[in-house]
Amino acid sequence: MILNEKLAGSVCAPRGFRAAGVAAGIKPSGNPDVALIVSGVPASAAALFTTNRFASAPVLVSREHLRGGVARAVAVNSGCSNACTGEQGVRNARRMAEITAGLVGCRPEEVQMASTGVIGRQLPMDRIEAGLRQAHACLGPDGSSAARAIMTTDTRPKEAAVEVASAGRTFRIGGIAKGSGMIAPNMATMLAYVTTDAAVEPGLLHEVLAAVAERTFHCLTIDGDTSTSDTLLVLANGESGVEVSRDGPHLDAFREGLQAVCLTLTRELARDGEGATRLIEVRVSGLRTFAEARSVGLAIGNSPLVKTAFFGNDPNWGRILCAAGYAGVAFDPDRVSLTLCGVPVVRHGTPLPFDEEAVSQAMKAPENVLEVVFGEGEAAASIWTCDFSYDYVRINAEYTT
Amino acid sequence: MILNEKLAGSVCAPRGFRAAGVAAGIKPSGNPDVALIVSGVPASAAALFTTNRFASAPVLVSREHLRGGVARAVAVNSGCSNACTGEQGVRNARRMAEITAGLVGCRPEEVQMASTGVIGRQLPMDRIEAGLRQAHACLGPDGSSAARAIMTTDTRPKEAAVEVASAGRTFRIGGIAKGSGMIAPNMATMLAYVTTDAAVEPGLLHEVLAAVAERTFHCLTIDGDTSTSDTLLVLANGESGVEVSRDGPHLDAFREGLQAVCLTLTRELARDGEGATRLIEVRVSGLRTFAEARSVGLAIGNSPLVKTAFFGNDPNWGRILCAAGYAGVAFDPDRVSLTLCGVPVVRHGTPLPFDEEAVSQAMKAPENVLEVVFGEGEAAASIWTCDFSYDYVRINAEYTT
Repeated sequence: MILNEKLAGSVCAPRGFRAAGVAAGIKPSGNPDVALIVSGVPASAAALFTTNRFASAPVLVSREHLRGGVARAVAVNSGCSNACTGEQGVRNARRMAEITAGLVGCRPEEVQMASTGVIGRQLPMDRIEAGLRQAHACLGPDGSSAARAIMTTDTRPKEAAVEVASAGRTFRIGGIAKGSGMIAPNMATMLAYVTTDAAVEPGLLHEVLAAVAERTFHCLTIDGDTSTSDTLLVLANGESGVEVSRDGPHLDAFREGLQAVCLTLTRELARDGEGATRLIEVRVSGLRTFAEARSVGLAIGNSPLVKTAFFGNDPNWGRILCAAGYAGVAFDPDRVSLTLCGVPVVRHGTPLPFDEEAVSQAMKAPENVLEVVFGEGEAAASIWTCDFSYDYVRINAEYTT
Repeated sequence: MILNEKLAGSVCAPRGFRAAGVAAGIKPSGNPDVALIVSGVPASAAALFTTNRFASAPVLVSREHLRGGVARAVAVNSGCSNACTGEQGVRNARRMAEITAGLVGCRPEEVQMASTGVIGRQLPMDRIEAGLRQAHACLGPDGSSAARAIMTTDTRPKEAAVEVASAGRTFRIGGIAKGSGMIAPNMATMLAYVTTDAAVEPGLLHEVLAAVAERTFHCLTIDGDTSTSDTLLVLANGESGVEVSRDGPHLDAFREGLQAVCLTLTRELARDGEGATRLIEVRVSGLRTFAEARSVGLAIGNSPLVKTAFFGNDPNWGRILCAAGYAGVAFDPDRVSLTLCGVPVVRHGTPLPFDEEAVSQAMKAPENVLEVVFGEGEAAASIWTCDFSYDYVRINAEYTT
């Protein structure tokens, strides 16, 4: 049971974690660009990494480090992705782990890393080193400066934390995330770091994380691009004294808490998609499997025509059904119904008369929900996305130059 | 051998075809919106239709009519798609065939139809009927007015025609096409009508058409959306006296001519994509199969990040490799090389120093070529797309309202 859904402190809400974010001059803007998260004791670790064939150097090295199932620290920089950087990039990622390990007092294998930003440029290692030293000196009980330092084109930091009660005990789970463009599922999402003071062995931790990601981060799409750096990492340090095991009493509560944190981060990522003016939730039901429902939801959520229609407050529902129709899922068009911002617009394949002006007004809300109901089965899925505005083009046409 | 690549008249270049396009008041703008193409004698017909589950009513009826393998006329309206229109929509599509058959003097089953425009609205049948009568009265030896009348958000008509010499004989192939948004492969493309005065039986015609589409229209993407109306239709009326058969001397020449017409139309569709400022050709080579090479090309060509970078004249090549990396094709990143507008920017996975300003200048040309070379095999594919500009958002945020 979740006792407190709005706990402060994000990754530092669970006991035994400290974090910091500092400006190390990697971003030309002078904004914070180096983040460090440290557990006082070795923590179980599990992660989902990008499936992109051009995985970044820090992803390659972090994947290697994760074989041990243990981590003490997470070191992240923004402003430069260290992807497509060849052998030099891998050497720089290893050096980043060594510097962090030296500061924290652990083995380099206990350090997880990420670099996010422009692809194809080498890390400025002097600034990385200075930034990590400064961040280590600033470690404190609040995740917000770290949440800010991992941002790229994000307009605001994303944080979440919950307190969970289970069988008379309590533990906490917190997280931060970044990611605004180059976001699509079929991977972990961009960067998301979750901490907990529950104790969970790495195998079980990975299993629960993968299941939760299926219905949170993997149901998120901004622009259909899967980045080279995507990482979703969870650290479980056991400092609450609550042990989550396969056969113990706490597994369901842990899953529930992790789901809550990941869902909040997922929604915040969608809401802050590049150029977004609103969050769009696509609810799909009445199909044979969750996978089918998600496929339809993602086809709708990825359609530039649907997304520009929302930006224009245009109840052009034909584009929504059109996207559903090419999702690769079999269904009877005459059993499809569609509700847009609470207003039924199609019932059993037939358009309904509706007040277009009223729906257009309703679409101006900061959250839009559309529901597509099929007549094929009982499975459902929700996906989260945002609208597609002039600002997406502006941001991405002017990113490096 | 292609004798003349730039023949005038498009669908009317082959003997025995006449066409017309007129303004029937279906589009609020008053622009031409009804097109008719007629063969003087019954023609063999073959087509590829959309794979969208919400196929439009005219697609459903045309598919039915095509079972006979014969057509005399093609009737098309723009301004209203007759998709997601239930039983009334199907009745209207049948009525459109009957009206056309009455005018031309053929059976309704010998009429192929399409309607393109906003989804979910019923056809104004009085205007459709008046438009078809007027178009029939205006039938003439030039395809350009028909090419214009099938346009929606296209900024210009697309036409092509060639004269082909084969074993001492000549025949002609011509075509028109429309489509500017809601374009992705895995179907025929939007609307494309091809005529020829060669004689080809329907089964062979379909076979050649499907093979040619694989390397032309199916290598085109504007925005990843597959519409409900997509149709690629070819009519072969035999008026040249040249018979193309499986064992005869003309098959290769016919395929070459059809490929030339479809390729020209494909490139013109990409060049005129919604909001496009330029044509982008993505050449992929060094993979195991054509399908793999096309998958990588389409991942690059569909990436909003790649397309906005081109719009911004930004040689941000990392986005190109990133898109290649999530195409679902296995490859060794250290054997990948990339050339952008003729300038090598990555060799064997390692970034090369290059003059960013010079490449940015080169990107301002009306056609940009990028080449990705893998080290996995001998197969290659080219795909065609366009850049992604503010105008795509403007056009699609303001389409119905």
